[in-house]
Amino acid sequence: MPKKRSSKGRLEEMLDSRRRAEQGNGSRGSHYRGGREDDGTRTGFQNNGRDGNMFVMEEQPFSSSRTHDNPFTSTTAGASSRSRGSNRNSGSRPRRHSLTAQLNASIDLGTGRRTSKVSVNGADGLGPGDDDEDDDEMILLAEEPEHDPVLHRHRSFSPGILGRLGIGRDARPDFRYDDYSTIDWARDTALELKRKKESVRFQGYISQAWDAASGWVLMGAIGVLCGVFAGFIDIGAEWLSDIKEGVCPRAFWLSRKHCCWAEELAEQRDTCELWKSWGEMAGYSIEDDARLAGASFAVRYFAYMGWAALLAGICALLVVRISPYAAGSGIPEVKTILSGFIIRGYFSLWTLAVKALGMVAAVAAGLSLGKEGPLVHVACCCGNALSYLFAKYRLNEAKRREVLSGASAAGVSVAFGAPVGGVLFSLEEVSYYFPHKTMWRSFFAAMVGAVVLSNLNPFLSGHLVKFYVEFDYPWHWFELIPFIIIGVFGGLYGAFFNRFNLNWCSFRNQSALRKYGITEVVCVALVTALLSFPNRFTRSSAADTIAALFSECAPGSVDPLCDDDRSIIMGDLLLACAFKALITIFTFGIKAPAGLFIPTMFVGATFGRVIGMVVEDIVASHESVSMIANACPNPDTCITPGLYAMVGAAATLGGVTRMTVSLVVIMFELTGGLTYILPLMLAVMISKWVGDAFNRDGIYDRHIRLKGFPFLDTKEEFSFATRAVDVMQPPVSADEPPVVLPCDGLTVAGLEDIIRNHTFTGFPIVNNRRDMLPRGYLIRSDALDALAEYKHDPDCDMSAPVQFFEDDAEETSFSRAVGDAMPSEQALDVTAAVHRDVFQVSHTMVMPTVIELFRRMGIRQAIVMREGRLVGILTKKDVIKHMHVMTARHANVQYH
Amino acid sequence: MPKKRSSKGRLEEMLDSRRRAEQGNGSRGSHYRGGREDDGTRTGFQNNGRDGNMFVMEEQPFSSSRTHDNPFTSTTAGASSRSRGSNRNSGSRPRRHSLTAQLNASIDLGTGRRTSKVSVNGADGLGPGDDDEDDDEMILLAEEPEHDPVLHRHRSFSPGILGRLGIGRDARPDFRYDDYSTIDWARDTALELKRKKESVRFQGYISQAWDAASGWVLMGAIGVLCGVFAGFIDIGAEWLSDIKEGVCPRAFWLSRKHCCWAEELAEQRDTCELWKSWGEMAGYSIEDDARLAGASFAVRYFAYMGWAALLAGICALLVVRISPYAAGSGIPEVKTILSGFIIRGYFSLWTLAVKALGMVAAVAAGLSLGKEGPLVHVACCCGNALSYLFAKYRLNEAKRREVLSGASAAGVSVAFGAPVGGVLFSLEEVSYYFPHKTMWRSFFAAMVGAVVLSNLNPFLSGHLVKFYVEFDYPWHWFELIPFIIIGVFGGLYGAFFNRFNLNWCSFRNQSALRKYGITEVVCVALVTALLSFPNRFTRSSAADTIAALFSECAPGSVDPLCDDDRSIIMGDLLLACAFKALITIFTFGIKAPAGLFIPTMFVGATFGRVIGMVVEDIVASHESVSMIANACPNPDTCITPGLYAMVGAAATLGGVTRMTVSLVVIMFELTGGLTYILPLMLAVMISKWVGDAFNRDGIYDRHIRLKGFPFLDTKEEFSFATRAVDVMQPPVSADEPPVVLPCDGLTVAGLEDIIRNHTFTGFPIVNNRRDMLPRGYLIRSDALDALAEYKHDPDCDMSAPVQFFEDDAEETSFSRAVGDAMPSEQALDVTAAVHRDVFQVSHTMVMPTVIELFRRMGIRQAIVMREGRLVGILTKKDVIKHMHVMTARHANVQYH
Repeated sequence: MPKKRSSKGRLEEMLDSRRRAEQGNGSRGSHYRGGREDDGTRTGFQNNGRDGNMFVMEEQPFSSSRTHDNPFTSTTAGASSRSRGSNRNSGSRPRRHSLTAQLNASIDLGTGRRTSKVSVNGADGLGPGDDDEDDDEMILLAEEPEHDPVLHRHRSFSPGILGRLGIGRDARPDFRYDDYSTIDWARDTALELKRKKESVRFQGYISQAWDAASGWVLMGAIGVLCGVFAGFIDIGAEWLSDIKEGVCPRAFWLSRKHCCWAEELAEQRDTCELWKSWGEMAGYSIEDDARLAGASFAVRYFAYMGWAALLAGICALLVVRISPYAAGSGIPEVKTILSGFIIRGYFSLWTLAVKALGMVAAVAAGLSLGKEGPLVHVACCCGNALSYLFAKYRLNEAKRREVLSGASAAGVSVAFGAPVGGVLFSLEEVSYYFPHKTMWRSFFAAMVGAVVLSNLNPFLSGHLVKFYVEFDYPWHWFELIPFIIIGVFGGLYGAFFNRFNLNWCSFRNQSALRKYGITEVVCVALVTALLSFPNRFTRSSAADTIAALFSECAPGSVDPLCDDDRSIIMGDLLLACAFKALITIFTFGIKAPAGLFIPTMFVGATFGRVIGMVVEDIVASHESVSMIANACPNPDTCITPGLYAMVGAAATLGGVTRMTVSLVVIMFELTGGLTYILPLMLAVMISKWVGDAFNRDGIYDRHIRLKGFPFLDTKEEFSFATRAVDVMQPPVSADEPPVVLPCDGLTVAGLEDIIRNHTFTGFPIVNNRRDMLPRGYLIRSDALDALAEYKHDPDCDMSAPVQFFEDDAEETSFSRAVGDAMPSEQALDVTAAVHRDVFQVSHTMVMPTVIELFRRMGIRQAIVMREGRLVGILTKKDVIKHMHVMTARHANVQYH
Repeated sequence: MPKKRSSKGRLEEMLDSRRRAEQGNGSRGSHYRGGREDDGTRTGFQNNGRDGNMFVMEEQPFSSSRTHDNPFTSTTAGASSRSRGSNRNSGSRPRRHSLTAQLNASIDLGTGRRTSKVSVNGADGLGPGDDDEDDDEMILLAEEPEHDPVLHRHRSFSPGILGRLGIGRDARPDFRYDDYSTIDWARDTALELKRKKESVRFQGYISQAWDAASGWVLMGAIGVLCGVFAGFIDIGAEWLSDIKEGVCPRAFWLSRKHCCWAEELAEQRDTCELWKSWGEMAGYSIEDDARLAGASFAVRYFAYMGWAALLAGICALLVVRISPYAAGSGIPEVKTILSGFIIRGYFSLWTLAVKALGMVAAVAAGLSLGKEGPLVHVACCCGNALSYLFAKYRLNEAKRREVLSGASAAGVSVAFGAPVGGVLFSLEEVSYYFPHKTMWRSFFAAMVGAVVLSNLNPFLSGHLVKFYVEFDYPWHWFELIPFIIIGVFGGLYGAFFNRFNLNWCSFRNQSALRKYGITEVVCVALVTALLSFPNRFTRSSAADTIAALFSECAPGSVDPLCDDDRSIIMGDLLLACAFKALITIFTFGIKAPAGLFIPTMFVGATFGRVIGMVVEDIVASHESVSMIANACPNPDTCITPGLYAMVGAAATLGGVTRMTVSLVVIMFELTGGLTYILPLMLAVMISKWVGDAFNRDGIYDRHIRLKGFPFLDTKEEFSFATRAVDVMQPPVSADEPPVVLPCDGLTVAGLEDIIRNHTFTGFPIVNNRRDMLPRGYLIRSDALDALAEYKHDPDCDMSAPVQFFEDDAEETSFSRAVGDAMPSEQALDVTAAVHRDVFQVSHTMVMPTVIELFRRMGIRQAIVMREGRLVGILTKKDVIKHMHVMTARHANVQYH
C-alpha cells in the first residue's frame, strides 16, 4: 500500500513545506520546552548520539583518557572523539558480523533479473542448514573488494570446532552482531520463534524433547563445571598460599592442611611436624636461641615476599600477554553483557584459563583480593562455552543471556556455598532479564554447583567456604546500638572506598602507569607482602583470618584472637583493618583477576570484631546496669564478638556493593540460621542508606560508568518529567529533519551517501521525506553489507533504486518518481534486512515511561512519533546520557 | 502543528479513499494472513473485544454459568452476554470514579467564554489540595441529571475517615478507576512524577524526608500488623480446635497446650490431667470399663461433630452475610489485583475482619483447609488499610501495588516462618512487577512480621510454625529413587486435584448448589468430622499431624506413628491420605476462607511417610546388599521417614501450585539447613514436570481463569508467530475502520453518538477519518463525565465542537471544516482528559513481543499502526483471548 504522493499538487507541497518549517522552528507549544533545561550541555552530544561505540560520561572527572591497551576505556570526549569514532567505524571494522548478512549473489531464474539480495537471520532465512554456511561465507568474504575504505574489513579465519567453543580470544566471532554493540532482544525473540517453528516442522518427537530438555542439561553441566573449577581454584590457591610460608617436604604439592591430614587430632591438622616453614627448611628451628629465631624470621619474611612477587608476576604476565579480559572482577562486564551488550571474547576459553590460573596465583600472592567476583566470570565463561554445544543458545544472543544469568548464580553459589543467595545475587545485581524460568534453572545450576563442590570438599571441612560458622547464641536488643554503629561504619567505608578506588582507576588510565601493568602488580604484591607479614592477622590468607574473626573463642583456644592481652589484639586488628582498606584501593583495578568480597569482608570483620570486644568489655564492667543484667544472666557469654564481625562484614559489603537482599541471604546461608538475620539486615540497610547519602551507586555500577559501557541500570529511579521530544535526535532546537531513508526515489548512490555522511548505527525508513510516515528501520551494518555486495558486481548501477519492501507497488511508485530511465531489475534489494517492528513512542511520552520501555523491552532504539509522523530517533545511548545529565544536574533536589 | 487537510484538493481525497479501500479489502500482502488460522473462533469475539468487564474463557467447560451471588463468576458467553455487558456498563454504573473526572464548571474570566472542563489527575491537576476535593465532588454529583440512562450513576456517600480506611465493603470507592477495570501503570507513573514535582515545590525538607521514609515506615507497620494477626489467628485456631475434643475446666479460654503449660515436664505439656476431654466432662473416665469407654467415645464423637458443624456454620454465616470476598484462599484475586485489576472492597476492613475470624472458625471446624493462603489475603488487607494513611500510596493504584507485593511476602513469611521464602513467593507466584526496591522492602516487612510473630510465640515452641523440624541426618544417593517416585506422585496428585477441583467448582457455579452456601459448608464440615474422628491421623489438626509426620521416632516415643505395628500405621496413613485428597476437592471453593497449603502438605506428607517406611523395611531386609551396606553402616538409623514426608509435602505442593524456587526455599527454611535442598528440589522439579504434562497451570492460575479475570500471566510462554494485525480490533477481515474520534469536526452530539453505539472502554483520537494519524486516546468514562457535565448546562449546544487539544490551531482547523456558524466558546473541552501517550505498535510486530510489551509495561491498550496510520486497537483482553485460543488450538505441537 504505497503512498502515491509523487504526483501531488503544488498546494499540498506548499502545505508540507510550511508544516516542516513549523516543526523545525519550535512552534510546538509550551510543553515542548517545559522539561528542557539542558540545551547547553546536550549540544556537545548532538551529533554524537548514535555514532560508533564510544560512550563518554561527563561526570567522571578523569574519564577522558586516551588509553589503547585497555579495550574498555572510553577514549575521548567532545568533537575529536566524534571523528575518531567514525573513523573507527568506517576505517577498519574488525570482525564484522557475517552470518547476519549472509550474502547471496542469487540469480532469480523465474524473472531473469539479477538481484543482489542480503538476507538477515533475524528477519529471515534461518533454516536448519545454517550451520553449514560458515564456509560459503568465507568464500564470499574473499571476493570482497579491498579498495573501499568504508567497506574494508578483516578476514577472519574459519572458526572450526575450537573456534566454536570460543578458543582464542577472537576466534569465534558472533555472526550476527558487531563487537561493542547492543543486541536487540525483540529481534532475537523473533529469531527463536522462527527456529522453533522450523524445528517443529522438520524434527521428530525425540529431537523436540531434546530441544526442550537441553536447557536443563546445559544448566546442569554448567553447575558441574563451576563446581569443578571452584574446587580446583580453592585447592590450588590453598597450596600456593601455604608455599609462601613453608613446604611439605614429604610431598611439596600438598598444602599444610593436606600435609597434616594424617594427624589424628583435628586440632593438630593445622600445624604439625610434617610441615616445615622456610625458616626450618633453612635450618633455623623455631626452638633455637634468639639470634637464630631472628634469622629464621628474616628467611621467612624474605621467602614470603619472594613468593608473593613471583606469583604476582606470573599472574600479571598471564593476564597482560594472553588475556587482558581476565583482569579485574568481571562483574561490571558481566552485568553489561547480560544487559545486551556484546564484548567479543570476554567469555572465551582463553579468558577462562587465564582467569582461573591467574586467580590462583593472585590469591596465593597474598594480594588484597578475593576469588568470589572472578568466580562469577569463570562461571559465565563455562556457561558460554557450553552453550555453544546447543544450537538453541549458540545462535541466539538473547537466549544465551538466560544461560549466563544462571551461570552467574552458580558462580556465587560455589563462591559462598549459598545457592539461594547466588540466585538472588544474579537476580538483584547481575541479571537484566530474569524470567521465572531462568530463576528456576539458575537455582538448579547453583544447586548442582554447590553439591559438586561439597563432594570435592576442598577445605577438608565439609563446608564450601572457609568462613562458614554455626553458632546459635542469642543476641540482645541493646546490641542493636553497636550494630547500628557498625552499619554506619560500613556505609562510610563504602563511600570512601568507592570514591578513592574510582579516582585511582581513573588516574591510572590517564597516567603513564597504565603502560606498566606487570610492574604495578609486582610492586603492589611486594608492598602488600612487606606490610602483611609482621601483622599476625594479615599474614595468613584473608579467608582464614575472616574465619577466625567470625568464630568464637573456645576455652583454651590457641587462636591469637583469644589471647588475654586484649588491647594488643584490638590494636593489631585496627591496623590490619586500615591496611586492608588502603591497599585494596590500589589493588582493585590492577591487571590481575581481583574480587572485592574478601578484602571488603576483611575490613568489616576486623572492625566489627573490635566493636564486639569493646562491647564485651563494657558489658563486663557494667554488670550491674539493669538492662544488661536482665538480658545477660551470665555476662561472660553475653556478647558474641564473632557475630559483630559477621555484621561488620555484611555492613562493609553493603556499603561497597549496595546490594541488599542477596547480601543478607548470602550471610544468612553462611551462618545457617535465621537467628541473626535481623542484625544483618539492619546493618546492611543502614550501611546502604549512609553510603547512598555520599555517592549513589555501588562499585560495580561506577566501574561500568568509568569504562563507558552503555548500561541502562534497572535499579536507578528516574523521576524527572522530561519528555521523549526533549531527548530525541535531532533535537527540536536543531531545526533539521531526522536522517531517514525515503522509500520513494532513494538511489544506491543516495544510500551510500547517507551512510558515509552519518555514523548512526541505523536509519529509519519512511515513505518519503515530506510525510515522514515510518515504514521500517535499517541497521547500518546490514546496509553496508548490501552495498558491498552490490558494488562487487562490476556492472553495478549506482543510480539504481534501493528496494526496501517486496511489495511491487513500491517499485512502481519509485519508477514514477525517478522516471522510466532506470531499469528496475538493477535494484539493490535490502528487503530481508529491513526491520519493520521498530518501537514507536509518542513525542509527549514522559521519560520515566520511555526509560522503562527501553529497560523492560531491551530495545536499542525507538522512533519518536508526532501524529503519525516520524520526528526523531531515540537511542539507548541518548536515554542513558539524558539520565546521567538530569541526575547530575538535579542531584540536590533528587531523592528517593 | 495542526494538519490543515480540510482544504485539500479533490485529487488528494480520491487518493485517500482509494487508500482506505485497499486497507479494508485485505490487499495487504501475504504475511497478513500467515499466522491467522483462527478467524472462525474469533468472530464470536469480534464486537466483544473491548466491552464491559466480562471475560469468558472458551476452554473451561463449565464456565458459562449465570450466577449472581458470586461477583467474580463470568456470567455469560456469546451474543447474549454482549448486550448484557453493555447494559451493565450503561444502565446502572455503580460507584463511578469521580476524582478522575473532577468536574469543574469553570468560567474562564480571561476570555469570557464558558467551558465545561474535565480535568484528570493522571494527566493534570493533582495539586496538594486534592484531598479536600471529595466534598466538592459530592456537590457536583448531586447536581447530575438522573434521566439520562447513559449517564445515570449511583450516588456514593462521603467516605469520611472510616471510609478512607476501607471500612464498609464499598465505602471507599477508588476515585480514579472503575470497579472491575484495569489500571494503567504508565498513567500512574506520570501521576507519581507529578506528585513528587509538586511536593518538591511546596514542601520543606522534613516533609520530603518523611515522604522518602514513608515507604519504610509503611512496610514496617505492615509487618507488625501481619505478625499480630497471624498470632491472633494461630492462638484462636489452636484454642477452638482443642475445644472440639475437650476443655480446660480451670479456664475454658485456654488451649490444651496453654492449659498444661504449668506442667514441669515438657512431654507432659501436650496431655495433662488439667485438660478434660468431653468424655471425661460427661463423667466417663477413660480408665473405666469397656462399656463406659464406648459411651465416652460416643460423647466425644458427638461433641467433635457438633463443634465442627457449629464453627463451620458461624464461619459460613460471616462470609455469606458480611463479606463474600472473604471466601476462598484469596491468592487468585491477589494475583489479579497485583497485575493491575481493580476489585473494589476486596481488601476492605470488613473483609479483613471476616477473613481473620472466619479463618479461625474454619480451621477449628476441622475443615480440610489451611490458613497460609488466607494469611496472604489478610496481609494485603492490612497493607491496603495502612497505605491509606500515606498520600503517596492512597492516591496511586500503581504505587499501592508495590505495597501489596510486600504485604503478600509478609503474609507468607508469618504463615511459614520463612521470610526469604515469602519474598520469593511474592516474586514468583503473586507479584506482577517486582522492582528491586520492592524486593528489599518486602524483605523488610517479611522480617518484621516474622520477628513480631516469634515474640508472640503462639505455639509456645519458639518456632513460627508447628511443623518446624531440625534434623541433620544425612541422606544417601540411592534414596533419590524413592524421592523420584514421590515427585511423580506429587505431580499426578496435582494434576488430579487441579482437574477435579476445577470441575467441581464449575459445577457448583452453574448448579443450584451455589444458592446454599452456608448449608454446603456445614455439610462438608459434618462429613469431614464424621470421617476424620475415627482415624487417629485425621482427628487432630492437620498441622499437628504434619508436624508428627515430619519428625522422627525417638526411642520410647508415645507418638502413634512410632508404634510397632507398622502395617496398621501404613494403612491408616494411606486412608488419611486418600480421605484428605478427596475431601479437599470439595472443600476448596466453599464459602469459607480456605488455604490449600496445609491439606496438600498433609496428602504429600502421609504418602511420603509411607514410602519412607517401605524403604526403611526394604533396607532392613536387604542389609547385605553392597550398595546399602556401604551407605549405611547402621541400617537402623539409615532411613529418615520424616524426610520422606517433607519431600512428599514439597512434591504435592509443587504439583498443585506449580511453584518452584519459592517452594524449595520455604521448605528449606522450615528445615533450617541446606542438607535436604537437593532431594526437595528434585521432587519439586519432577512433580512440576509430571503435572505440566497433564495440565498446564497451577491451581491459582486455573481459578483465575475460572473466575474470568483478565490476567496476563507473566510465566506463560507464548511462541506463535502471529502478528499484531491478526489480533487487533477491528480485524482485517471485518473490512471496517476502527472506531475513532476525529479531531476535525466532531460535535458533542457526534461524540455522544459514538459513545452510545460502542461499548469500548476507550477511543483513539485521530486527526481525521481519512488520514487516521493518531493524536491521543480518550477513556470512555472520562468522556461520559465530560458529557454529563456539559449537558448539565441548560443551554448546552449539542452541535458545538469537541475540543481535544489546547492548541488553538486545532479549533481553527475545526472551524474551517464545520463552518463559522459554530460559536467556538461553546466547545466541549476534554483536553485534560486526553491521553497523548498511548503505546503504538507496528502492525507487523510478532505477538510474543506485543505480549511482552503488555506484560512488562502493564498497559491496557495499544494502537496498531501501519505506516503512521492507525489501523486498529489492541486491548489487554484481546491479547489474553488470543493467547488462550492459540494455546488451546496448538496444544498438541506446543512444547517448552
